[in-house]
Amino acid sequence: MYPNDGFRELDPQECLRLLAKAPVGRIVHTRHALPAVLPVNFCLDGDGTVLLRTSAASELARAVDGAVVAFEADEVDAARNAGWSVVVTGRATVVTDPGEQKRLARVGPISWVPSPEEVFVRIRPELVTGRELVGGHTLYGVDLTP
Amino acid sequence: MYPNDGFRELDPQECLRLLAKAPVGRIVHTRHALPAVLPVNFCLDGDGTVLLRTSAASELARAVDGAVVAFEADEVDAARNAGWSVVVTGRATVVTDPGEQKRLARVGPISWVPSPEEVFVRIRPELVTGRELVGGHTLYGVDLTP
Repeated sequence: MYPNDGFRELDPQECLRLLAKAPVGRIVHTRHALPAVLPVNFCLDGDGTVLLRTSAASELARAVDGAVVAFEADEVDAARNAGWSVVVTGRATVVTDPGEQKRLARVGPISWVPSPEEVFVRIRPELVTGRELVGGHTLYGVDLTP
Repeated sequence: MYPNDGFRELDPQECLRLLAKAPVGRIVHTRHALPAVLPVNFCLDGDGTVLLRTSAASELARAVDGAVVAFEADEVDAARNAGWSVVVTGRATVVTDPGEQKRLARVGPISWVPSPEEVFVRIRPELVTGRELVGGHTLYGVDLTP
């Protein structure tokens, strides 16, 4: 969130309400010392925790376990040039408790590409920010290709 | 991009073709030593460079100038459970050449929230990756809130 940039800031409650409606989010982390971002399916747990489900063999699980990550969702209406974005920042951990794993297997998110062995990744929100864009210029990029 | 995760990898040409059609992208960088992500308007220059336009006073311009960043765009059809995502990784620089500034002021991207003093940020692609999701499970998250 950048102050004085002409967007309306959203309070954490608004942010979590919007996040709960988003069909997809993006997990932002560091991979080989470079910024990395990956769209993922997710759901919110009761306490606002972000839950992901991925293959136990996936590099994502190893890359984010124990790391502070950002999780972003947004919705932009290019025609109305309006929209919002929400970012949750917090530590990601792979769920290892067997009881919690069983509970999440029942009620947690579903993998886009199911695999025999899956793990759940929990992101505990330490910082929740969001902003709303209302009106302004077109969102469409201009292709400069000759 | 994570190998063996059940998604089809896209070649750089496919990636840039898809990126050129995306109305919005997300710039991923580090802010105060934490991962940060911000949706932005953008356009592609002839050489596949990503161009952003922002307020000269914005923290974003200061935060990314000279840094290696990731730029992501995606399109997900939750109903068909299909979609794609593209990530361009490279160094971001604020355009300072007056001639180039003039050219971009004519043909470059338009700010969502115009400000009196604006700068252009150029991201030169050093790594272009993308993946396609075809079919699979629903993308919708499951809200665990009681």
